[in-house]
Amino acid sequence: MNDTALREKLATSTRILAMQGLLGLFGHISVYQPETKRVFLSPGAGSDKATVQAKDILIADLDGRVLEGEVLPIEWPIHTTLHATRADALSVFHLHAPRATLFAIARREFRPVTLRGVMFGEGIPLHTETQLVMTVERGHRLAKLIGTKRAALLRGHGIVVVGRDIEEALYASVVLEDEARNAMEAAVLGELQTFTPEECRNINREDDFPRRARRAWKYFAAQEARWDRQPGTGRAPLA
Amino acid sequence: MNDTALREKLATSTRILAMQGLLGLFGHISVYQPETKRVFLSPGAGSDKATVQAKDILIADLDGRVLEGEVLPIEWPIHTTLHATRADALSVFHLHAPRATLFAIARREFRPVTLRGVMFGEGIPLHTETQLVMTVERGHRLAKLIGTKRAALLRGHGIVVVGRDIEEALYASVVLEDEARNAMEAAVLGELQTFTPEECRNINREDDFPRRARRAWKYFAAQEARWDRQPGTGRAPLA
Amino acid sequence: MNDTALREKLATSTRILAMQGLLGLFGHISVYQPETKRVFLSPGAGSDKATVQAKDILIADLDGRVLEGEVLPIEWPIHTTLHATRADALSVFHLHAPRATLFAIARREFRPVTLRGVMFGEGIPLHTETQLVMTVERGHRLAKLIGTKRAALLRGHGIVVVGRDIEEALYASVVLEDEARNAMEAAVLGELQTFTPEECRNINREDDFPRRARRAWKYFAAQEARWDRQPGTGRAPLA
Amino acid sequence: MNDTALREKLATSTRILAMQGLLGLFGHISVYQPETKRVFLSPGAGSDKATVQAKDILIADLDGRVLEGEVLPIEWPIHTTLHATRADALSVFHLHAPRATLFAIARREFRPVTLRGVMFGEGIPLHTETQLVMTVERGHRLAKLIGTKRAALLRGHGIVVVGRDIEEALYASVVLEDEARNAMEAAVLGELQTFTPEECRNINREDDFPRRARRAWKYFAAQEARWDRQPGTGRAPLA
Repeated sequence: MNDTALREKLATSTRILAMQGLLGLFGHISVYQPETKRVFLSPGAGSDKATVQAKDILIADLDGRVLEGEVLPIEWPIHTTLHATRADALSVFHLHAPRATLFAIARREFRPVTLRGVMFGEGIPLHTETQLVMTVERGHRLAKLIGTKRAALLRGHGIVVVGRDIEEALYASVVLEDEARNAMEAAVLGELQTFTPEECRNINREDDFPRRARRAWKYFAAQEARWDRQPGTGRAPLA
Repeated sequence: MNDTALREKLATSTRILAMQGLLGLFGHISVYQPETKRVFLSPGAGSDKATVQAKDILIADLDGRVLEGEVLPIEWPIHTTLHATRADALSVFHLHAPRATLFAIARREFRPVTLRGVMFGEGIPLHTETQLVMTVERGHRLAKLIGTKRAALLRGHGIVVVGRDIEEALYASVVLEDEARNAMEAAVLGELQTFTPEECRNINREDDFPRRARRAWKYFAAQEARWDRQPGTGRAPLA
Repeated sequence: MNDTALREKLATSTRILAMQGLLGLFGHISVYQPETKRVFLSPGAGSDKATVQAKDILIADLDGRVLEGEVLPIEWPIHTTLHATRADALSVFHLHAPRATLFAIARREFRPVTLRGVMFGEGIPLHTETQLVMTVERGHRLAKLIGTKRAALLRGHGIVVVGRDIEEALYASVVLEDEARNAMEAAVLGELQTFTPEECRNINREDDFPRRARRAWKYFAAQEARWDRQPGTGRAPLA
Repeated sequence: MNDTALREKLATSTRILAMQGLLGLFGHISVYQPETKRVFLSPGAGSDKATVQAKDILIADLDGRVLEGEVLPIEWPIHTTLHATRADALSVFHLHAPRATLFAIARREFRPVTLRGVMFGEGIPLHTETQLVMTVERGHRLAKLIGTKRAALLRGHGIVVVGRDIEEALYASVVLEDEARNAMEAAVLGELQTFTPEECRNINREDDFPRRARRAWKYFAAQEARWDRQPGTGRAPLA
């Protein structure tokens, strides 16, 4: 994809996540252009994510040098280290997701509870360092922790989700947030019947994931296009 | 009812459910026309349920062949098998209802907690298969599990609700979702004082159900008519 | 107050309660005119409470005969028996309040948890009958249960709140709903530090209650006046 | 800052807090002008906080005498005693914050659960008196309890948050509310992994706090500027 297309898609994804309450004061998302080794990033803390446009997208190289735009989010190494070390991490989201982050607060391992959630069947590792990921070293430790997995939890902080493109990272993020909501709400009623790693492997159809991610993108993009951007609206459990 | 009326009513019901957060990225609802043995279906995953119109409604035969419209939701056998095997299942809803589904996640049997909820006094069976209901065989097993009951829970997936018409399926779905919310929220305060099957039989007035379903339809249709379709609005506990 | 003023105030209160998610498909509120022994009632199930106007208010006598308007809510005896037997019950609200009703579902006695809530310091009795209050006999038993108290819980059903005027019944209802929300949410964190009956008597300033009720009325009426009546909006914890 | 600027900023902060559901029927906020020993206060109970303008701001001296405007909130001593006795308490918020107050209801000590929350690492003392802070004596006891800390909990009542300016008090309030939400929601999933005082001291970067508070102000002010002030909107978990 060319610069314009990447900028547009990343900006739309930023607004979709703002609509859903997953990007707000905090958090940033990126997409990588392997041909030019450049990272496209949404703007950092303080910017109003619900109104981000293509022109607001920042571009940096893999060493965190700004190529276009002004100041990078301070945790840019989350993005650059994953883009640099993992060929299938073409899109990286760092979100202070309100419900998914609960698994980085409570002493309870994340396990999927719905059929959608089995995409996280291999588990979600917890990054226990309590500093922001502001250095390349920390970024590398985080990337190593994630390994080939789809996501990581950052203790008392947020989540990182990885996708082969923006659509996949978006869909995975939305599903993870809703898994956490489901777990939190169901836990009040009784013991959670989570899916075991083996069940997940049997149920999950990874080959169908790109198609599902595109369907979800279409659905959320249609909602975002008619969103009037009123604060506090746009959030809803995944139904 | 003629095709136009069925299409209109099913589209309105789709939008009402979207408003309430019961139909979104996932889920679909149907109504059956026994005279012609045709099934009317709302469009599947990815479509924007909040804006569905009569013209978007799909029509299929009982073997899942599309008669009007394009692609059926992949879980169409949920609808066709119930319509084919149960004379009083003229409307079938499959919803990823955020709260009702909690009873398909937590190890806790559903029991009614309000007077409205006693319509589910016979219990709600749990379908434990972990594949989507994409084949007629799975559909038949699900239909058999439901038997003469009003609903089923699908493990880690969603719910199926059956009605003699769209109004009844809608009202039953809304009540079931609110029963689950009530149970979840009250469980924090103390042991739930659920209604026993015998209490339910004594309290429930099945003969009055059609009238109540029509009253609820009128209420929700009036809300839907003035809904501006902003994402995340329209959801509220049943009061 | 004359008929016009009572109709206007009751309609406004109906819309305020609809805004807050306390009146919806179910529930109705009344005000009594002792001079003429007439009961003014909001319309029953199925009507759209968010748009109720003065002209929609029903008037009945104490025997449930309709004097103006069409059909009374079927549970009209809740109102007439309290108005007839208790001189200070000039306004009676019957609400399917989503959170207060949790205390009529969980096995846990209601106790106040905030300074505002001490107005319910004498406790809230639970009406355990599982029929709707559709007869005068049931109404009398409920009125007897309430005695001189401010409210009652109806098992698996809703609440009844009594006030010396509409403002007092409204404020008491809003506070009760928020007490229940506070209790429910705090119970997750630890044992509730409720206020004992003696603490409540020491803290409560009943003489100041009318002034506080008027202040709350002013606040909520201002919100209602600018409410655009979108479904699902208007609800918020009391802050 | 001059009077006009203080009035403007306090009014904007009032509306931001109204948007977030932290200021409503109850609560008030203040800023102190040391040069003139005057206290600027938002209007008290009953006023519609979502529409407060600069002209609605009250001004009083440290003895609670009104200099400009009409009636002070009855708990004005919360503000005057802190402004008078603590040089770094230039802004004081008293909020009936729905979630933070839960720690003044449940028997559980507040501890931070996120990296943002470590600003409260020294703990939040609980004021156990059950009278409103309507006298200077009570105000002094509360100020003494707070000491050099950032906030206090008032039993069954609300919170007090202190900042060196309006931006800092706002950011601290928003973070505290979200800490409480996180704690409440995560507690359902398992034991909370709170941050110890020592961890908090290691993580917290107090020198960076003013910059973060300004970034948050910019973010929330942008949202408030496009808020249409519909009741019940504007509230969202901090993301």
